Amino acid sequence: MSDTEAMKVIIVGGVAGGASAAARARRCHEAAEIILFEKDEYVSFANCGLPYYIGEEIAERNKLLVATPELFKNRFNIDVRTRHLVQSINQEQKTVSVLNQKTGALSEESWDRLILSMGAAPLVPPLPGIDAGNVFTLRNLNDADTIKEYIKQHNCQRAVVVGAGFIGLEMVEQLHCLQIETELVELQPQVLPPLDPEMARLVQNELTAHDVKVHLGTAVEAVNVEDSKAVGVELGNGTSITADIVILGIGVAPAIELAKAAGIEIGNCGGIAVNEFMQTSHSHIYAVGDAVEYTHGVLEQPQRIPLAGPANRAGRISGQHAVTDSAHAMIAPMGTAIVRVFGLTAAVTGLSKKTAERSQRKNRSVIVIPKHHAGYFPGAESLFFKLTYDPETGQILGAQAVGKEGVDKRIDVIATALKFKGTIRDLAGLDLAYAPPFGSAKDPIHMAAFVAGNDLDQLTSIIEVDADLSGYQILDVRSQKEVDTFRFPEITHIPVDELRGRLHELDASQPLITVCHTGLRAYVAARILKQSGFENVQNLTGGMLMQRHARPEMFE
Amino acid sequence: MSDTEAMKVIIVGGVAGGASAAARARRCHEAAEIILFEKDEYVSFANCGLPYYIGEEIAERNKLLVATPELFKNRFNIDVRTRHLVQSINQEQKTVSVLNQKTGALSEESWDRLILSMGAAPLVPPLPGIDAGNVFTLRNLNDADTIKEYIKQHNCQRAVVVGAGFIGLEMVEQLHCLQIETELVELQPQVLPPLDPEMARLVQNELTAHDVKVHLGTAVEAVNVEDSKAVGVELGNGTSITADIVILGIGVAPAIELAKAAGIEIGNCGGIAVNEFMQTSHSHIYAVGDAVEYTHGVLEQPQRIPLAGPANRAGRISGQHAVTDSAHAMIAPMGTAIVRVFGLTAAVTGLSKKTAERSQRKNRSVIVIPKHHAGYFPGAESLFFKLTYDPETGQILGAQAVGKEGVDKRIDVIATALKFKGTIRDLAGLDLAYAPPFGSAKDPIHMAAFVAGNDLDQLTSIIEVDADLSGYQILDVRSQKEVDTFRFPEITHIPVDELRGRLHELDASQPLITVCHTGLRAYVAARILKQSGFENVQNLTGGMLMQRHARPEMFE
Repeated sequence: MSDTEAMKVIIVGGVAGGASAAARARRCHEAAEIILFEKDEYVSFANCGLPYYIGEEIAERNKLLVATPELFKNRFNIDVRTRHLVQSINQEQKTVSVLNQKTGALSEESWDRLILSMGAAPLVPPLPGIDAGNVFTLRNLNDADTIKEYIKQHNCQRAVVVGAGFIGLEMVEQLHCLQIETELVELQPQVLPPLDPEMARLVQNELTAHDVKVHLGTAVEAVNVEDSKAVGVELGNGTSITADIVILGIGVAPAIELAKAAGIEIGNCGGIAVNEFMQTSHSHIYAVGDAVEYTHGVLEQPQRIPLAGPANRAGRISGQHAVTDSAHAMIAPMGTAIVRVFGLTAAVTGLSKKTAERSQRKNRSVIVIPKHHAGYFPGAESLFFKLTYDPETGQILGAQAVGKEGVDKRIDVIATALKFKGTIRDLAGLDLAYAPPFGSAKDPIHMAAFVAGNDLDQLTSIIEVDADLSGYQILDVRSQKEVDTFRFPEITHIPVDELRGRLHELDASQPLITVCHTGLRAYVAARILKQSGFENVQNLTGGMLMQRHARPEMFE
Repeated sequence: MSDTEAMKVIIVGGVAGGASAAARARRCHEAAEIILFEKDEYVSFANCGLPYYIGEEIAERNKLLVATPELFKNRFNIDVRTRHLVQSINQEQKTVSVLNQKTGALSEESWDRLILSMGAAPLVPPLPGIDAGNVFTLRNLNDADTIKEYIKQHNCQRAVVVGAGFIGLEMVEQLHCLQIETELVELQPQVLPPLDPEMARLVQNELTAHDVKVHLGTAVEAVNVEDSKAVGVELGNGTSITADIVILGIGVAPAIELAKAAGIEIGNCGGIAVNEFMQTSHSHIYAVGDAVEYTHGVLEQPQRIPLAGPANRAGRISGQHAVTDSAHAMIAPMGTAIVRVFGLTAAVTGLSKKTAERSQRKNRSVIVIPKHHAGYFPGAESLFFKLTYDPETGQILGAQAVGKEGVDKRIDVIATALKFKGTIRDLAGLDLAYAPPFGSAKDPIHMAAFVAGNDLDQLTSIIEVDADLSGYQILDVRSQKEVDTFRFPEITHIPVDELRGRLHELDASQPLITVCHTGLRAYVAARILKQSGFENVQNLTGGMLMQRHARPEMFE
């Protein structure tokens, strides 16, 4: 369709994906008629900023309004209609029927191209008391306004957050900023379910260090209600929690009803099926954002990835393709995600060990815990970095990082390498920016790749952080002082620097695991042993420092 | 050669490359005899930390000693001999002759494999007065001790730093921390010669904002000496500077004499020629670090890259290859470098526009100036980001970034993409970690890639920051208030939001340039114009904000 042809584009939903689609469509087609329907009051607001607005870290509400209907009109000649609910799609007639929620009027609008960006709705489990007025979900600016107002008016002192995913954790942090005593409930046995348990444990410790009580492996079974207000929740494990506000952050359900009713194909993961240009099963109907399934870059199969980054990029592609019939294909997202929890940052890209197992991918994971920049430079902080890769090809599958500083950088480097289907060999040779305030000549990325490479080359074998250690002779090569602080119950102790002279104390016929604080000295020890007739030697990746988080019950 | 064969490895030079080689060689070959000769007093010290030790940002001297000879002995069974100067190599006999500088004794040592890691020596120009006792270079810990002691003993008040490269800038910053009034002299017409001029100008402004006087495009012609002490310098432009200490940071010369005398091949760039395993023209002699030429990852030709990262990685590879005859090949470095200058960080990877021109690579550069994280989140800082790419294939050639926050992350992402010979299309789809404290749903990387992609697709043409603007109709689409602040002398002014209604005020037959604050609104304007019959429209990349730095004389 050329620029001069008449063209009418309807966009349904005006937040990340829809707003991007609208602006891009205009820039690619000046003459098109573009109408954007939004069921709520606001378009193009910063939904990722909502928790921070509630917690007053973002002080001004109008900062959240990235673009107003006036700006869409003046700059992009786009007709934004808020509080308009699209109720049905007629594929053959190429129309939608729209309810103006301000007036109650129903109308039909025709389209040449239709872009659906309706997002997802927060899940609300059907529990007794769940309808109480002070049980909230957080999805749009109205929700944020309501929660903020409620907290103020009722001078809330105690909160329960249900769900320890990204939004749940952001809400816990921000409620804590408001000096509200907050407890967190999560059905899984760990916080941050996208991470592996030992990495998530670091985040859990940060929560408890800030007096957030964390209830894991248990569900809310009922909301206790008095005078139509929630006053607490009952957990499956018998615990009662008192609270004067309840926030639900247990996930979202893709808004697919409209598409489904119109006969548009829904994928196996429950999202709208789209191709690389965001076309649905009807080639003139596009869908983007939290309601769709993207091809996951590592899994190479459809996956729901309800995150802002892919939504924005997909919106842009759909907007261009809708008005020009061409665009550069969507690059598969990797499920990269990040969250700040008080002083810590936790992030993931690609597959965790858990997700690799679940999708039956052969996998191996190493953990390194170097400083985020040169150790000799002030302010160096430990970075817990887990790299998961294919044990046969060395292909990177994913990474997780938790630390006070430098987490986002390392995850972005891995996300970039994932795009190119890079291997651990590639990572070992990356020419990353180094000066003492920013990194190390051997960056945490390099260190992880070196460890993985040594494992792949069988220079040393690593044993994973959660492996069964029974039946092994455990050789702790730390100093006496370190061993005295915390240790496994049954170990042999020889400091690494004495090992060459004390090999006779060990039984070379027995399978042996070397361990130190983070894994570096244990690697040196493993190499000495392996070259001295010890054939079955493995180095415990992440060392004792990681074991404290992987097997906390042993050291508590 | 198998692990059990006798093997003797001599390593010459014990800092970044040599120390890495030694440790790796041991881990790969427990039985080898490994001797490390170092001409100075210390091995494995943190040379990148020296400026910060002088400036007392690193308070403890012993933090700089990463590994001592004792640690090398105890942990790695490596015989470290400091103050031993290797004077010659006998290739046929496979020996070196060594001077023990403590005793004056000369000896011969045989080797099966020899690894040269002798670094480079600071350049000292043959100027009158240059031999004065208080004209210093900074290369090793003794240099740092001497400078530190001199400053203290003589209560230095005024310093001149000669050379505005990475070390020069670090020294300026650190001397300023000591409350020493510091002036900077650079032969090039800009600071930080690896960067393009307008990007370097941002750094220059940061220096002058901290009362550092910067003398560009002029050389030191003489050091003024009184009582055998430097009391200042004379510049080629006639300026005299008073100072009680002079620091030279004008570059380094690779230490190739030993290799050259032994008949080892020297490359065209003046460094020792090596292959991907760091083997010199004599396959049993390896060389690494500042004395060699690496294959540059973008130029794909040999280049001297005297930086710590490549030295460490090359050392590790050479150490393994020397004792096992195999290793994973060195991945070509990209010349990635970074420096903190007061509150700013400046970094580069791959080619700048300048280096692309110099090496006759077709190139095009876009500049974006977004916030380093979500604009609505507190603490968002402007990030000046320049992306250089091949205008035909879209292949990334390099990037430069200057800003208060987030510089290292973006440069590392580009350095990673360069490894994979990525294109701007790849960058546009990277799944980077996003939450408001860490980035934007459309990251600066994406924004730059979008701009470059639009240019490549001829959606809009960008005009480069340093292009000749004469003969163009310039359309400034900013608000009246912005235009009043600073503007080009001859412009047409139509705010972008009024453009559709005022097209008749413009001459569509004339080549036209759109400009706004950073380039975003000018892009929207260019699209409107291009679709309204204006065939020759270009968008000034980086906008007026970058013009202030590219053509400061116009606005001063």
